[in-house]
Amino acid sequence: MMVLVKVLIGIVCGAVILTMGILIGNYGIAKSSSSAPSWVKDVVKDVDESFIEKFLSEVDNIQIQENLRELTKVPHMATTAGDEQTVQYMLKRWQDPKTGLDEAWREEYMVYLSFPDPKKPNKVTVVSPSETVLHTVRAKEKSYTPDQDDPEVVQPYAAYSPAGNVMGKLVYANQGKLSDYQELNKTLDLSGTIAITKYGGAGRAAKAINAAPFGVVGVLVYTDPLDINDGLMSDINETYPHSWYLPPSGVERGSFNTHYGDLLTPYLAAKEKTYRIPVKDITGIPPIPIQPIGFEDAFILICKLGGEAAPITWQGGFNCTYNFGGPGFRNTSEFNASDVKLDIFNYGEVKNSSNVMGIIRGSVEPDRYVIYGNHRDSWVHGAIDPSSGTSVMLELTRVLGQMVKQGKWRPRRSIIFGSWGAEEFGLIGSAEYTEQYFTKLSERTIAYINVDIAVFANVTLRASGMPSLQNVIFNATKQVKAPGSVSSSVYDNWLKYSNRTSPEHGDIPKMGYLTGAGSDYAAFVHYLGITSIDMSYTYDRSKTNARIYPAYHTAYDTFDYASKFIDPGFTSHQAVARTAGNVLIRLADSLVLPFICSDYAEVLKAFLNIALNLYKTQLQARNISMEPLERAVESFTSAASHLDQVIQSSDLANETPLKVRRINDQLMLLDRAFLNPLAFPDKYAFRHVIWASSSAGKQTFPGLADAFVKAESSGQSSDWDKVHYHLSVLSQAIEGAANTLVDVI
Amino acid sequence: MMVLVKVLIGIVCGAVILTMGILIGNYGIAKSSSSAPSWVKDVVKDVDESFIEKFLSEVDNIQIQENLRELTKVPHMATTAGDEQTVQYMLKRWQDPKTGLDEAWREEYMVYLSFPDPKKPNKVTVVSPSETVLHTVRAKEKSYTPDQDDPEVVQPYAAYSPAGNVMGKLVYANQGKLSDYQELNKTLDLSGTIAITKYGGAGRAAKAINAAPFGVVGVLVYTDPLDINDGLMSDINETYPHSWYLPPSGVERGSFNTHYGDLLTPYLAAKEKTYRIPVKDITGIPPIPIQPIGFEDAFILICKLGGEAAPITWQGGFNCTYNFGGPGFRNTSEFNASDVKLDIFNYGEVKNSSNVMGIIRGSVEPDRYVIYGNHRDSWVHGAIDPSSGTSVMLELTRVLGQMVKQGKWRPRRSIIFGSWGAEEFGLIGSAEYTEQYFTKLSERTIAYINVDIAVFANVTLRASGMPSLQNVIFNATKQVKAPGSVSSSVYDNWLKYSNRTSPEHGDIPKMGYLTGAGSDYAAFVHYLGITSIDMSYTYDRSKTNARIYPAYHTAYDTFDYASKFIDPGFTSHQAVARTAGNVLIRLADSLVLPFICSDYAEVLKAFLNIALNLYKTQLQARNISMEPLERAVESFTSAASHLDQVIQSSDLANETPLKVRRINDQLMLLDRAFLNPLAFPDKYAFRHVIWASSSAGKQTFPGLADAFVKAESSGQSSDWDKVHYHLSVLSQAIEGAANTLVDVI
Repeated sequence: MMVLVKVLIGIVCGAVILTMGILIGNYGIAKSSSSAPSWVKDVVKDVDESFIEKFLSEVDNIQIQENLRELTKVPHMATTAGDEQTVQYMLKRWQDPKTGLDEAWREEYMVYLSFPDPKKPNKVTVVSPSETVLHTVRAKEKSYTPDQDDPEVVQPYAAYSPAGNVMGKLVYANQGKLSDYQELNKTLDLSGTIAITKYGGAGRAAKAINAAPFGVVGVLVYTDPLDINDGLMSDINETYPHSWYLPPSGVERGSFNTHYGDLLTPYLAAKEKTYRIPVKDITGIPPIPIQPIGFEDAFILICKLGGEAAPITWQGGFNCTYNFGGPGFRNTSEFNASDVKLDIFNYGEVKNSSNVMGIIRGSVEPDRYVIYGNHRDSWVHGAIDPSSGTSVMLELTRVLGQMVKQGKWRPRRSIIFGSWGAEEFGLIGSAEYTEQYFTKLSERTIAYINVDIAVFANVTLRASGMPSLQNVIFNATKQVKAPGSVSSSVYDNWLKYSNRTSPEHGDIPKMGYLTGAGSDYAAFVHYLGITSIDMSYTYDRSKTNARIYPAYHTAYDTFDYASKFIDPGFTSHQAVARTAGNVLIRLADSLVLPFICSDYAEVLKAFLNIALNLYKTQLQARNISMEPLERAVESFTSAASHLDQVIQSSDLANETPLKVRRINDQLMLLDRAFLNPLAFPDKYAFRHVIWASSSAGKQTFPGLADAFVKAESSGQSSDWDKVHYHLSVLSQAIEGAANTLVDVI
Repeated sequence: MMVLVKVLIGIVCGAVILTMGILIGNYGIAKSSSSAPSWVKDVVKDVDESFIEKFLSEVDNIQIQENLRELTKVPHMATTAGDEQTVQYMLKRWQDPKTGLDEAWREEYMVYLSFPDPKKPNKVTVVSPSETVLHTVRAKEKSYTPDQDDPEVVQPYAAYSPAGNVMGKLVYANQGKLSDYQELNKTLDLSGTIAITKYGGAGRAAKAINAAPFGVVGVLVYTDPLDINDGLMSDINETYPHSWYLPPSGVERGSFNTHYGDLLTPYLAAKEKTYRIPVKDITGIPPIPIQPIGFEDAFILICKLGGEAAPITWQGGFNCTYNFGGPGFRNTSEFNASDVKLDIFNYGEVKNSSNVMGIIRGSVEPDRYVIYGNHRDSWVHGAIDPSSGTSVMLELTRVLGQMVKQGKWRPRRSIIFGSWGAEEFGLIGSAEYTEQYFTKLSERTIAYINVDIAVFANVTLRASGMPSLQNVIFNATKQVKAPGSVSSSVYDNWLKYSNRTSPEHGDIPKMGYLTGAGSDYAAFVHYLGITSIDMSYTYDRSKTNARIYPAYHTAYDTFDYASKFIDPGFTSHQAVARTAGNVLIRLADSLVLPFICSDYAEVLKAFLNIALNLYKTQLQARNISMEPLERAVESFTSAASHLDQVIQSSDLANETPLKVRRINDQLMLLDRAFLNPLAFPDKYAFRHVIWASSSAGKQTFPGLADAFVKAESSGQSSDWDKVHYHLSVLSQAIEGAANTLVDVI
């Protein structure tokens, strides 16, 4: 027994000593060179799906509704007192110690804006030969709720229209396209006339710019009920406040300029002492007075026009034939022999506009930015444009800010929020920001997310962006429930309303492209070449043909309108907030950026095939080879699929963080490779060879399509040279992009 | 005893068990998450000083001499058979399995060159009124060694001079500056004249471009003995082969163009199917025939000129008075009433030119490039220009390649070697390379090192580059022995011959700036904004006033000349190879890039102070504020010193590798921030606002200085506007650069 006991004691003692030894060995010896530094874990930080679930559950529709109520209290046109009120509100929210961001501040620019004169309102009248005023166009929109009576509601006007007093016989010029004036000019002498045009078809400024060479001295523009109201016109029972449709006196305001950014400081941030070009040197603004009016007045003017009946495609929603005009009114009408007179008193002024900026600092790669932005300024109360987007942004920052303040989350990369100023005057705040911080943003920005009008209507998602982002928005929308549904997702719903068949992925939702300059993504896409996405909830196109939500840029775009007719319950706002936030978190937190280069290649191939079909034969006949473009798209395709494979086949969470960074740099900078300042010499700050506005209307490379159309129509060899030149610029950019995706050395 | 023994046994057993436990605890338990992955050591790889010592000791002067012998066997003007021979030699060396690089290949461009017609040599004659040829200028240089008899020695000519047959009375136009022709024009009618000019003072093409508006129909250019030979002229006992001085028949060839890169494909890589502008649209080349001649013939022409004596500053080394010309010769001379006639048969041709590229792949950050380059093409044998530099490059690649092949070394970052083609015709190979790989190079290149003419003379180092590189070249030169010295370093020697007093560092060697387009650094500095350095050994300026080594661009720039008169023993070549290699290794291997931003700030402050002194009062009077520039330089200075402090105060070898990468990205991209394509609208591919050629001759911001001079001389308000505009461009770029150096978020 004793022996046994002794043996047992020995074993126990030995075990204890052994255990002590093991413990000492394991914990007591400093791990010196072979132990992992603390940052080894940090550098592999990746998206946390449970965090995303938590984020989605906390995004609240009522919070968004209350944000909107606050933001729409007063009209907040850029640089007015109302605008300053929203600046203060954004700062208060983003500097809130419990739900705010790491830091928030304002940045100011001195920008050139254009206003009507409150003391001398713009006036449009019909004047008889004896100088009797036979009719005066309504100066302000009719009031249905107290909102419209706010003295700060700006009179409808065309920003950047010159002041001037002009009169002449009226003609109807359809949409004010160059072809419209050419058509009129076939049978009419337009010199000295006033043209009335519809919104749509051509840019706002273009309606006046196209008119002037024909001798037209002034232009009116209105929204035809057929284009905005599905034909409805009566405010007794049809239009707002009975529905979302535009009341007869509603007028779309707008900025009548061709180029974006501050017009006096091209390519320079508009700081106080920055050099400004002379006002007379501004290009792309109306050379003759132009003024928007409501369809109530347009009806009176158009239905009295004389002359031949305009073509069927020019007809609109009024219950009369739209004639060309004699020029002038029918001699059987009360306006017989009368002129239309425009008295425009707009003036230009350099004013102080603010962006409000807020940041959440990244923990692992603070020098990589995901930027999320929307403008803050409106034309009047701007409930939908832009405050729906701002309400969504504020809900995002509340939920994320709270997590940050509570120490529960910090993104891998930095997030920058921008509340841009003076967008309505030409995307000015965002453009100046990109000019001021050009290098820093070019070098470090992962992506830009734009949510301006968050909800055009409450039916389905709409998203436009670079094809490499398709995958991340698909993943995000699959995780978000469609508004009012317990089973189907935003993705399912999107697929139902808008879809296409991809060679690679089969049937998928159809994502659009960012070709124009419709919102603040423009400077990021076209000038900086930053991978961008713009999203919103929108219409069921089988239910309405409205070119945009009817209260757009009018005094009726109010909280009442938004909450009653656009998104009652704010669940579509919520779906957009969840989707945009999900995308934002994935871009900020993913170890490897969730960009799929092959999806970009798929679009380039589709563009190429269309280009080959449309142009190859004719170009060959002129000895211009499309082979370099074919080869470039091929290089890009194979480089893209190679990089995608490298990513898939690597165990990046366990390899050197410099490899992840290297791949992420390739992905981040891909769109930068497509920049070439020579691509679009006539378009201000358009440098991305793949995305640009195009008048050719083809789903292909925009510069090639436009150059081809021009050469084909002029037949001049110098224009065919320009096609060849653009082909070289385009091919070089695509080859350059491919070079950034292949193995780095 | 037993108890003691038992106790002892117990203790021993316990100790053994404890030790076993400790061992098990320390080694037996898998280190799981807490053990360091293998890459933790790799990512902190830094410069190995003992490797640098080894490199320095292996760089061999005799190897360099033999490289030069090989490279100068035959003339190797761009795109000739001799050029192809050097392509093959470079490929053979860089693909050598024992001493070559990881990979080497050629890249081809179709570039526009200009040649004389071997069947109809250019001819310059003096023709009497009766059309008798009184004198014919020597068509080829006199032969002193068999080299000059090689049939491949190209006739002296002015590349890009138009062909043409022109004759007229001769005038002497000094250096062909605009002011020279203006001076002549005061008293002479220049129309129909031929102007003879000296090299120097104005660019080659400028001598003809300046002349044409005055009616001059042809231009001759020669090298005055005073400017190149310290006055010596006799080939009996003074000039080569008796010394390094230029023989009387020696002629400097050259490219007579203003812009660099292929002239038919601006901003596009000159590939086979790239769009080419029409030849007639080329700008910046001579509009009238121009031809270089030797001073032997210039002496005959100039000393017979009639007219008034030219000003004292126009006089040269001939023992006669340099007269303006009547126009034409003195009526007492045998050439009385005679014309000078130029029969120029140059033709343009698109030819295939190759760059030879070689790489050593980086081990830790393969996506970061240090580029080292020199051109390969010469005018004739090109021993000094460029083969001295190529010989040095080949010795570097031999030593480094050997280490790589033996597995003894692999740089942290990738190294790219470039042997550029067609530099002599306008830096074409390097420019096309930067156009083709624009994005990739912009995003990833740490620095460019250019060693073209490695040894102008064997006295002291000369280095020019971005101020942020000052520190690394100082460190490198301190480690290299001065040629022929056992105690003093290249640094000591440099300090002795060329120095300045820095506010921060006291007395230091004087580094120059890369303002012009004298060699292949141009595209890297001005177009890409890459931190660059150019270096060579050079003269003792107290010993010679030669504007360049006398055999420059002549048939005398041979192995014989180089080895006898420029660097006997090749020890200066060796010193340059050691210095350049040392810089290269430091840039490629340092954990933190050895760039000192504060040294950049010091230069900007100096530029600012000069600008304030020169311009502030006059600008204030015109309501143009220099305050934004002052503020920008201040921002830059404080951001630079902040970043320098962050680097010094961080323990970067033990922090996350993403922090090092972040800082290195800030350093790498600093010069990119200074790019603005609007800075120099008249200078092709000059975009770096701080460095550019300037005609104002002030040590300050070049665009500001030039704009100010122009405004001051014209007095036009539009020119003062341009000063203001440039100030805004400049200030924004410097602020933008400062923004990249401050904390990243």
